[in-house]
Amino acid sequence: MPHFIIEYSANLEDRLDIDALCEATRQAALDTGIFEIGGIRVRAYKSENYAIADVDPRNAFVHLMLRVGIGRDEATRKAAGDNIFAALSDFCAPLLEEPYFGLSFEICQIDPVTSWKKNSMHARLRGTE
Amino acid sequence: MPHFIIEYSANLEDRLDIDALCEATRQAALDTGIFEIGGIRVRAYKSENYAIADVDPRNAFVHLMLRVGIGRDEATRKAAGDNIFAALSDFCAPLLEEPYFGLSFEICQIDPVTSWKKNSMHARLRGTE
Amino acid sequence: MPHFIIEYSANLEDRLDIDALCEATRQAALDTGIFEIGGIRVRAYKSENYAIADVDPRNAFVHLMLRVGIGRDEATRKAAGDNIFAALSDFCAPLLEEPYFGLSFEICQIDPVTSWKKNSMHARLRGTE
Repeated sequence: MPHFIIEYSANLEDRLDIDALCEATRQAALDTGIFEIGGIRVRAYKSENYAIADVDPRNAFVHLMLRVGIGRDEATRKAAGDNIFAALSDFCAPLLEEPYFGLSFEICQIDPVTSWKKNSMHARLRGTE
Repeated sequence: MPHFIIEYSANLEDRLDIDALCEATRQAALDTGIFEIGGIRVRAYKSENYAIADVDPRNAFVHLMLRVGIGRDEATRKAAGDNIFAALSDFCAPLLEEPYFGLSFEICQIDPVTSWKKNSMHARLRGTE
Repeated sequence: MPHFIIEYSANLEDRLDIDALCEATRQAALDTGIFEIGGIRVRAYKSENYAIADVDPRNAFVHLMLRVGIGRDEATRKAAGDNIFAALSDFCAPLLEEPYFGLSFEICQIDPVTSWKKNSMHARLRGTE
């Protein structure tokens, strides 16, 4: 944790640099100051088949889900989310200027009682390897 | 919102028209009368690797998750879901007649405090662009 | 149900046998004794674009989400999860020995009021077809 899961419609492939979108999301997550670097996992999935709004072929979407462990209060999550969404909006600004784009973002919390993790990156990144 | 996320096993590729499945889902969503057209985003993801039930190679699945903003009561969500699942069941009827298929559908709600959206389609589709 | 959804970074393709990972997950699910075989659907999705931790190109992840119907108490879910995560950890042991890997697992519950299913495998697998 935290997990950042990006979905996007395949018609954005030639318009958005998805690696750069992942990196912008990672940087925005780091900039919030509330996530440990070793836990950040941003990943993207392309949808090849979709039906958006009035099915104009120019219609497109990007959606981000963030899944974080319980433990940060709502104000903290909201402030972090505001900043991450601002970064997303900047990244997607050209698309938002045209009437064919939906951008959305949602934060979900993970129940610590029924979640598990092992992370071999932390020791290296904490400099204690 | 609403977000409709379809998953399916790759062995259905030659048996189901996935674009048509997305469109049938979009139409069923519209038919409920509770969703604004500009917010509807149906998308599908193919799973290339899977292990279903007794791993008979004919085993296959379609799963739909709908994520909607909080604000509609349970009876409304249930009635809309009944109709959407009926449409899905119709679409997948030939598969359901054979003993190798699982179809499922789940509605989740999105917390408005920690979700964000920008949608440039609404103005166009509301005719107020 | 139950739904087992695996995500992994594409740089694991040559290091992990994803079909075998799905099968190991299915077997671990069966071994818990709390799931009916006909309902088990393990599926995996590859992420081609990602940004993990310090973006060392060797960084990689596997994440499993399990979605189960409400009805099993927390202790039961926790015990089943412990066993499934142990199987995952065994499968990914070589990766965990290197400082570039994150493994995680989360169980979510599905609200029965707003979920639907049809499964034509059960009758066959219950031997009552």
